[in-house]
Amino acid sequence: MNRELIRGILQESQSKIVLLVMDGLGGLPHPDTGLTELQTAHKPNLDRLAQEGTCGLTVPVAPGVTPGSGPGHLALFGYDPVANDIGRGVLEAVGIDFPLGPDDVAARGNFCTVDGNGDITDRRAGRIPTELCRELVERLRTIRVPGAEFLVEPVREHRFVVVARGAGLSDRLAGTDPNREGLPPLPVRAREPAAEGTAAAFNAWVGEARSILSDQDRANMLLVRGFAKYPHLDPFPEAFGLRSAAIAVYPMYRGLAKLAGMTAVPGGGSFADEVTAARERWDEYDFFFIHYKKTDGAGEDGDFARKVAAIEELDAELPALLDLKPDVLMVAGDHSTPAIMAAHSWHPVPFLLRGPNTRADGTTSFDEVACLKGGFGTFPATHVMPLALAHAGRLTKFGA
Amino acid sequence: MNRELIRGILQESQSKIVLLVMDGLGGLPHPDTGLTELQTAHKPNLDRLAQEGTCGLTVPVAPGVTPGSGPGHLALFGYDPVANDIGRGVLEAVGIDFPLGPDDVAARGNFCTVDGNGDITDRRAGRIPTELCRELVERLRTIRVPGAEFLVEPVREHRFVVVARGAGLSDRLAGTDPNREGLPPLPVRAREPAAEGTAAAFNAWVGEARSILSDQDRANMLLVRGFAKYPHLDPFPEAFGLRSAAIAVYPMYRGLAKLAGMTAVPGGGSFADEVTAARERWDEYDFFFIHYKKTDGAGEDGDFARKVAAIEELDAELPALLDLKPDVLMVAGDHSTPAIMAAHSWHPVPFLLRGPNTRADGTTSFDEVACLKGGFGTFPATHVMPLALAHAGRLTKFGA
Repeated sequence: MNRELIRGILQESQSKIVLLVMDGLGGLPHPDTGLTELQTAHKPNLDRLAQEGTCGLTVPVAPGVTPGSGPGHLALFGYDPVANDIGRGVLEAVGIDFPLGPDDVAARGNFCTVDGNGDITDRRAGRIPTELCRELVERLRTIRVPGAEFLVEPVREHRFVVVARGAGLSDRLAGTDPNREGLPPLPVRAREPAAEGTAAAFNAWVGEARSILSDQDRANMLLVRGFAKYPHLDPFPEAFGLRSAAIAVYPMYRGLAKLAGMTAVPGGGSFADEVTAARERWDEYDFFFIHYKKTDGAGEDGDFARKVAAIEELDAELPALLDLKPDVLMVAGDHSTPAIMAAHSWHPVPFLLRGPNTRADGTTSFDEVACLKGGFGTFPATHVMPLALAHAGRLTKFGA
Repeated sequence: MNRELIRGILQESQSKIVLLVMDGLGGLPHPDTGLTELQTAHKPNLDRLAQEGTCGLTVPVAPGVTPGSGPGHLALFGYDPVANDIGRGVLEAVGIDFPLGPDDVAARGNFCTVDGNGDITDRRAGRIPTELCRELVERLRTIRVPGAEFLVEPVREHRFVVVARGAGLSDRLAGTDPNREGLPPLPVRAREPAAEGTAAAFNAWVGEARSILSDQDRANMLLVRGFAKYPHLDPFPEAFGLRSAAIAVYPMYRGLAKLAGMTAVPGGGSFADEVTAARERWDEYDFFFIHYKKTDGAGEDGDFARKVAAIEELDAELPALLDLKPDVLMVAGDHSTPAIMAAHSWHPVPFLLRGPNTRADGTTSFDEVACLKGGFGTFPATHVMPLALAHAGRLTKFGA
């Protein structure tokens, strides 16, 4: 997607665009029935939208490539997900709403267990309870070392975020996880000369942490990796001329949308609550990213029936969203999460766009096989936003 | 295809991948029946694989571009066939199993006929018999000139390979063929200053050759062109984490695979012999490229019925290959060779992949029309390897 091309042909409009992301939407056939989750679900509203609009299949990153949630969403937002690979430390930090500064270096931390020789015996410290993680993080906050200020936040179980703050820090660092047990943690290593100082500060911090944790049975050491600074993404609202709201329950998705420059709007726990949040802010924004998590959770758990139920639950609540009369409504997924794989996958993801001037394609069902024959064909997810803008009357002619 | 992206997400697996290339696979309808070669053939095994797997059509190089065997295979192996254009001299040399050194400059040679003025009257020397070619090559081997050692090998009829060996040679040279009769051969010309020495050595060699050949009626001169050094292709086994075997009867295809870093495994003359060779080495390799030539030969000869028979012959032997239980089996072509054109063509090529987690696409026949509606759609042949790795469980998630 050529962002300069699109930016050059933007025109003003009062139209409203909704991008409804059903996380992990795409699936694979159940071996007993030969039908995918979408083919199994009773979903009259999605099917009607498929019939009224144009369908297709999106390729989130590249053929054969299974995306994480970050690349999957960035592609739908119109960013090249490979050029804008967001470090794990930043994703972990935005996932807990940590307010990253522009020069902060964030890393993902794991408590781990080491033996008397200092060799790792459990890279996840027996998945200690989150409560213990919080207590240990409190103690890590007392560490003071030269070169940077260190901010620490618990995440869940053995996981935490550590952020170095200071002038002239670099994220060109290699982490301490040797990726298997029986070896000692590695030192933090600089990947460029300018990162030597940051590496030294992190190593000093890790050394102090080792002393502080030495009285623990399981969480007697820690690992740090995924060093990353705040990514400077070309802001979505300016790129596409859209006042943009993000409605998502999970902090990770709000965080991703905020990285893209969208405004995270508070929303409740259910899809109905998310629609209510959109209604309340309807006049303030041109674009609404609404995130629905349940499809992915069920898929990741390998629970075919629960994924079907998640699709049906959303379908039943769709009329409330349609009542808002968005000019362009898109239903998309950040990636496939087939229940039979119990994991994200590389398979192209069903997509529909209902709005003005859609070309009928004969699709009468919203599922993987029907979308394969849809009017958009199989296409890169980065094309979603230009298609939305076009149908929303927000793009003028290119060239005379 | 982004090779760095794929390399960064490789993960280990015990899975086995087979890429069966049916050379010149794609066809065009016979004017009497309206059916292509694939549509005409009785091929129950290929049809069943199409039904069980996912189908599509590959574009080897670019729309409208007819590939030679080199680019057609390189694309299937995951190389950009335009960026990795292998010189004709090298292809000719690997085609006869000539052991090219890293600094050798290989060229394709033709014996030709010149008249009393030195003007070319037949660029192919009346296609002299291969036996005479061998005798003349023996005489050319006696030439000694300053600047390089010259190695000469016969190929077939009027064709031979000449290889300059020495320090500091360059392949940035223009050939001597004026491309039409009635003109004298051109001198070898340097395309960069650093190639002046190599050009001089080749010109000295050509001058000696002219003297040696002066007693001949037809092959009284020669032309050299297609100067090329050994291409340093990013090795396929490392790029994709696959111990890779190539099973091919014709030296050209073994040579191409060797250029890509695969190991050429000895195999017999028939497809059944090739399958036997795969069986014998099954535990030693993760990836098997098996080349089937007969489809292309029949297509090139314009023999529709023989191409149909070649498809049927392979189909009948497929069960022996399936008995090896490859995790991922792909049936592909390096290009189309429609019998009604009696030549390679630019038409997209039928492709199928049978393996775990394939998404059913309703395809029940392996042919050009059915594959057009297949789940992979029409896609660049360079995507074949990432798709194979994904289905084989050899790629992990990209991004968090």
